[in-house]
Amino acid sequence: MGSIVEPWAAIAENGNANVTAKGSSRELRHGRTAHNMSSSSLRKKSDLRLVQKVPCKTLKNILSNLQEVILGTKLTLLFLAIPLAILANSYNYGRPLIFGLSLIGLTPLAERVSFLTEQLAFYTGPTVGGLLNATCGNATELIIAILALANNKVAVVKYSLLGSILSNLLLVLGTSLFFGGIANIRREQRFDRKQADVNFFLLLMGLLCHLLPLLLKYAATGEVSTSMINKMSLTLSRTSSIVMLIAYIAYLIFQLWTHRQLFEAQQDDDDAYDDEVSVEETPVIGFWSGFAWLVGMTIVIALLSEYVVDTIEDASDSWGLSVSFISIILLPIVGNAAEHAGAIIFAFKNKLDISLGVALGSATQISLFVVPLSVIVAWILGIKMDLNFNILETSSLALAIIITAFTLQDGTSHYMKGLVLLLCYVIIAACFFVDQIPQPNDLDVGLQPMNNLGEVFSA
Amino acid sequence: MGSIVEPWAAIAENGNANVTAKGSSRELRHGRTAHNMSSSSLRKKSDLRLVQKVPCKTLKNILSNLQEVILGTKLTLLFLAIPLAILANSYNYGRPLIFGLSLIGLTPLAERVSFLTEQLAFYTGPTVGGLLNATCGNATELIIAILALANNKVAVVKYSLLGSILSNLLLVLGTSLFFGGIANIRREQRFDRKQADVNFFLLLMGLLCHLLPLLLKYAATGEVSTSMINKMSLTLSRTSSIVMLIAYIAYLIFQLWTHRQLFEAQQDDDDAYDDEVSVEETPVIGFWSGFAWLVGMTIVIALLSEYVVDTIEDASDSWGLSVSFISIILLPIVGNAAEHAGAIIFAFKNKLDISLGVALGSATQISLFVVPLSVIVAWILGIKMDLNFNILETSSLALAIIITAFTLQDGTSHYMKGLVLLLCYVIIAACFFVDQIPQPNDLDVGLQPMNNLGEVFSA
Repeated sequence: MGSIVEPWAAIAENGNANVTAKGSSRELRHGRTAHNMSSSSLRKKSDLRLVQKVPCKTLKNILSNLQEVILGTKLTLLFLAIPLAILANSYNYGRPLIFGLSLIGLTPLAERVSFLTEQLAFYTGPTVGGLLNATCGNATELIIAILALANNKVAVVKYSLLGSILSNLLLVLGTSLFFGGIANIRREQRFDRKQADVNFFLLLMGLLCHLLPLLLKYAATGEVSTSMINKMSLTLSRTSSIVMLIAYIAYLIFQLWTHRQLFEAQQDDDDAYDDEVSVEETPVIGFWSGFAWLVGMTIVIALLSEYVVDTIEDASDSWGLSVSFISIILLPIVGNAAEHAGAIIFAFKNKLDISLGVALGSATQISLFVVPLSVIVAWILGIKMDLNFNILETSSLALAIIITAFTLQDGTSHYMKGLVLLLCYVIIAACFFVDQIPQPNDLDVGLQPMNNLGEVFSA
Repeated sequence: MGSIVEPWAAIAENGNANVTAKGSSRELRHGRTAHNMSSSSLRKKSDLRLVQKVPCKTLKNILSNLQEVILGTKLTLLFLAIPLAILANSYNYGRPLIFGLSLIGLTPLAERVSFLTEQLAFYTGPTVGGLLNATCGNATELIIAILALANNKVAVVKYSLLGSILSNLLLVLGTSLFFGGIANIRREQRFDRKQADVNFFLLLMGLLCHLLPLLLKYAATGEVSTSMINKMSLTLSRTSSIVMLIAYIAYLIFQLWTHRQLFEAQQDDDDAYDDEVSVEETPVIGFWSGFAWLVGMTIVIALLSEYVVDTIEDASDSWGLSVSFISIILLPIVGNAAEHAGAIIFAFKNKLDISLGVALGSATQISLFVVPLSVIVAWILGIKMDLNFNILETSSLALAIIITAFTLQDGTSHYMKGLVLLLCYVIIAACFFVDQIPQPNDLDVGLQPMNNLGEVFSA
């Protein structure tokens, strides 16, 4: 790997220098992980000619800033859903309507957060940039989880996080490999296995942490009362969460520092698409304005997430879908939509490394960062949330990891692999669709409809 | 891959042109998938000198045709079992005897069906030839399954299909790798991993479809009644079956059209055995006579399968074996005998690709074509058959897939790999031998010997 060019040293600190180097031979190293690059494909090149004519300088700056941030994405229209959701809530229209509007409003926000973290990364350098991305990469999932916790809806937290991992592993990856395979049907698509391997053994560790509390419940014999079992499962879950966070930190050190070259999207020079991918080399907005936007957007995400968490039961009743189906399938699809689109576009351009980076990166991030963090936050809030995601959910997670790990094992890809992953997702979704098993009330310890099974085994 | 020679264009339409090109460098491409080639090793070169002396031309044609079809296989003797079985049935000798004779009669028929599909493939071209093979490859299993369904013996259908997948994955593959390894002990046997990979992730998808309905039953809490759970499991199974059939069709497109070169048995030129493998380049029987034979044989298979399905309980009582053992272990061994022998012979000749093609091809075909088809046929007949093969059977299927996938992971083979697969089969067979868990009457929904556990769940 050539020496790493420190970009920000060369660029004077002015907000709207907008030099775009067409297809530079080596992507500029400023924390451009797969995440940013995949959402960068949703960006519209904002032409500033209109704004330049505005006479006074500060106004011009603000306007160009606004244009960059708000109009800089193809999903701008979806921003309209945000005021509508707020209006619907204040005049309390139908709650399912609020649910729908808030969900739609979250999609462009997720993409903007990724855009903003990328802009900040210009100023903070690759390591901090990577860190920012590693934490805010799944901001929407994290915020929804914490708000659901605050409302003591532990089941929604578990379902939505699990659904997010499944959708990253099977849906995002499946569609990318499928469409990528069709677009490059003459060519054998290759990708770097090493990066995928790191994600897989971390995901397997996450699976272990979910499996043990679940099996603890099955293994519990008659003498142990349910509350005793739940206490054991809780302590185990909290310890495992701490261990998972340690693993995640080690993973960040591995990814952003010691083995960085593994994770950089290799620029395969023979790639015909190179010239099209015009990579923004310089930040379009200033650091502090970027930071302010990031904080503002996070607040709006929190607001919309609050609506979503509040109205999920009503949406479930009126749409006739179980809460588990909505949180496992619908929520993640909307939350990941921006990244998902980006991953497919890069797969089209036969840049599987980036699609893989997005899908597996997010899955690892949620499984080893967002989930344990929610358990720790629940612990602090005095809410009993354990890692036992229940038998149906944990087995689909196990199968999803095993099938994806097996499919990506030999470093090549074709459309059949994508199709199989996609169809597995359809089957799992169908399973949660028919699964009308009523959810236990969340007040007692976490989600465990199985507690009567515990007694049964001992009978 | 060289250009594909269309053989039939060159050959005039006369039934008994019998030119055998000795050891041509590249096997003739006319849909010669591993299936046909493996049963071709059981063919006897029929010498037509005797028949040539017959004066009148049509008689000569018929006789040579008869000789080709009936005497063209080393298993001709077993044909005698068919009239005996029919006799035994009309004079209703001991029912276990009828069961035994019908089973034996089925073996040569399975081989002849594969021979006939290969002959027809000469006339229909590689794609249709491949399609023919992909559907009639496991004609006996399919016919037994549908007849058992018609008699509402859902348990027998499930057991026999599961047994067939297990025997393909562990027994056929195990013996081939074992004997192949012993015969080529000096050499490292290589095979093309890509083809095996495609089969494995399809099999994993099939596993997922069996696992979810099974777990749905375990996840059901007290509130949900057994009939409600069965209804959910049934809807889920039927949706998954449709998804499985879609996956199978995509697999056929992948195998016979877009990525055909992956599935053609590579002719490794340095192979010393080349000259011996005299490959029949031209059809020995006409298209319509081949077709007539195929229809005739299918009817005989149906007749024998009817006997088998009828007398299976009596055979189980008199031989002291449980129905599950007979259907999981005995039925598949007989049904696959012809292919099995062929796979071993090709493994001897260090042509592992063909043995793999047979074993994995059949396993995929049964898991993603015959099983979902039976569920759909049951649906049409109004019989409640779901994909829940129960915990013991599904776990042995899961282990079989994972062990075989792992063994074939690096593209090489030696006798130890074969031995391990073989011993796994013995262990699973032992498990079903001791498994005296009384079978539930098949009248209620599908196979769930666990239903006493089911009620217990809802207690």
